[in-house]
Amino acid sequence: MKDILIGVDIGGTAIKIGKFDLQGELLHKWEIPTDRTDKGSRILSDVHRSITEQTDWDDVRGIGFGVPGPVVDSVVLACVNLGWKHVDVAKEFSALLGRADVFVRASNDANVACSGEVFRGAAVGKKNVAMFTLGTGVGGGIMVDGTLVDGKNGAGGELGHLVVDFDHRLPCNCGKHGCLETVASATGIVNLAKLHLSQSDRESSLRHFSDFSAKRVFDCAKAGDGIAMRVVDEAADYLGRVTAGVMLSLNPEIVVFGGGVANAGRFLLDRIAIKADEYSAPFAKDTPIVGALLGNDAGIYGAAYLVR
Amino acid sequence: MKDILIGVDIGGTAIKIGKFDLQGELLHKWEIPTDRTDKGSRILSDVHRSITEQTDWDDVRGIGFGVPGPVVDSVVLACVNLGWKHVDVAKEFSALLGRADVFVRASNDANVACSGEVFRGAAVGKKNVAMFTLGTGVGGGIMVDGTLVDGKNGAGGELGHLVVDFDHRLPCNCGKHGCLETVASATGIVNLAKLHLSQSDRESSLRHFSDFSAKRVFDCAKAGDGIAMRVVDEAADYLGRVTAGVMLSLNPEIVVFGGGVANAGRFLLDRIAIKADEYSAPFAKDTPIVGALLGNDAGIYGAAYLVR
Repeated sequence: MKDILIGVDIGGTAIKIGKFDLQGELLHKWEIPTDRTDKGSRILSDVHRSITEQTDWDDVRGIGFGVPGPVVDSVVLACVNLGWKHVDVAKEFSALLGRADVFVRASNDANVACSGEVFRGAAVGKKNVAMFTLGTGVGGGIMVDGTLVDGKNGAGGELGHLVVDFDHRLPCNCGKHGCLETVASATGIVNLAKLHLSQSDRESSLRHFSDFSAKRVFDCAKAGDGIAMRVVDEAADYLGRVTAGVMLSLNPEIVVFGGGVANAGRFLLDRIAIKADEYSAPFAKDTPIVGALLGNDAGIYGAAYLVR
Repeated sequence: MKDILIGVDIGGTAIKIGKFDLQGELLHKWEIPTDRTDKGSRILSDVHRSITEQTDWDDVRGIGFGVPGPVVDSVVLACVNLGWKHVDVAKEFSALLGRADVFVRASNDANVACSGEVFRGAAVGKKNVAMFTLGTGVGGGIMVDGTLVDGKNGAGGELGHLVVDFDHRLPCNCGKHGCLETVASATGIVNLAKLHLSQSDRESSLRHFSDFSAKRVFDCAKAGDGIAMRVVDEAADYLGRVTAGVMLSLNPEIVVFGGGVANAGRFLLDRIAIKADEYSAPFAKDTPIVGALLGNDAGIYGAAYLVR
């Protein structure tokens, strides 16, 4: 009886593996290190070996992978973090399995975070969903009618790289300036705060730290610090613009925010919601803006969802 | 043999009706006036009567409608131009037909312009498409995996109402300021030109006209007029931003521009493409940006596509 789904979240340092029943109940999870030597050529066989030790493949309906790079039709186009160039995950893993009765699928890691929240998180029961992951960078995932949008070049859901800031124009890792990621990721919020501190003489508790995190900026804002508050409002405004853009193009049932920055909770989400509503009125109404629920496990849940 | 599709494009003054074979070949088209009296209550029966005069319903596989308002699951939520509030087109037209063997579907008019271009126009064979209709306003349509995205409130594809202009902030009919429509529709381009003329003493051939059209602005720009050129570049920049946003969220196979403003041809489209590439690099590459081919017939083609 094929009643097991496997979800694999491949990161630059560790690979998370989860074993689920068909309803998405997590039965067991574990991690193995990511072997990036030899252009990551041993990653898939390491995953195969580790799962084989713990699972009878006869029971497995399918295995899904989340990968930190662009993916089209389960083919990874490039993945700098793993050393991968063109890797046909479905084909290569099926060859390792040596059997055709196990589905193999792959998608981008930010996309599978979205499908994870749909499977067992903040967006259960929804089929049209947008998700932002506000971490070191800003990732995004888009689901339309129950299917993740990979896009022609695997750029579907790359919401972090919409250019939104035409004033500060902070440089982005992607080569552009003013991307959402430069002002709304954990790094971006710190940079925005440093910018405001340098451009003003106003007292701020942030000045008492030689360095600080995005969490510190939120904590200070919650305590009433003027500069920190301005940074949070500005980040929320940019996030609201992109959220409104998603609402006016896809008009999803729900928008989910995950990643470390979203731990700021309703303090941030309510501000994003107000701006998103302002920029999308009167068309896209009553779209819930919610926090993600699965934390770092979203990837394994979402990867398993690919083969549910 | 059910080998006929009917496409109906309901406008505020006229209703266009097209009869197609299953491959989307237009066999016959005609128009009837739109009777907006009594809250548009006779519109569907007028359509039914007109088609019945020309067609044996036994031959008809389905009938699709394009309607100028938000539509969800073939239910029109509101349509000011027709006097409609909540109208369940599928249910009401099926009742008029008195038979269950003819599919009835409806979607927004800008959405069906998109599916029309997919059926027989500039995007034939594509399943993931974004279309902008640059007319008096700016409409949009999004297709994902062969299906139009209506969205939760029927706001799917409302690309004209993304806020893009945080400088001039021209008022929009929707109640917001700075929507794409305020700077990139035919009206918007004229307003942008008048704004630039009023803010500068620079000579411009546009000053020789007491009033002018968007086409005039393009003609002057093509002839080298500096102010007209600046207006075109600015409109292309705004269109490029939203196009890049669509590319980074959905990464479609092709982006189509229709409507009167798109008649400016490659002079406009090339400028949009350069900006879209600049704002989406390096993620969404090689996305063709093309002009629509079906003109005012896109609606009937696209409505027929809904029931193909």
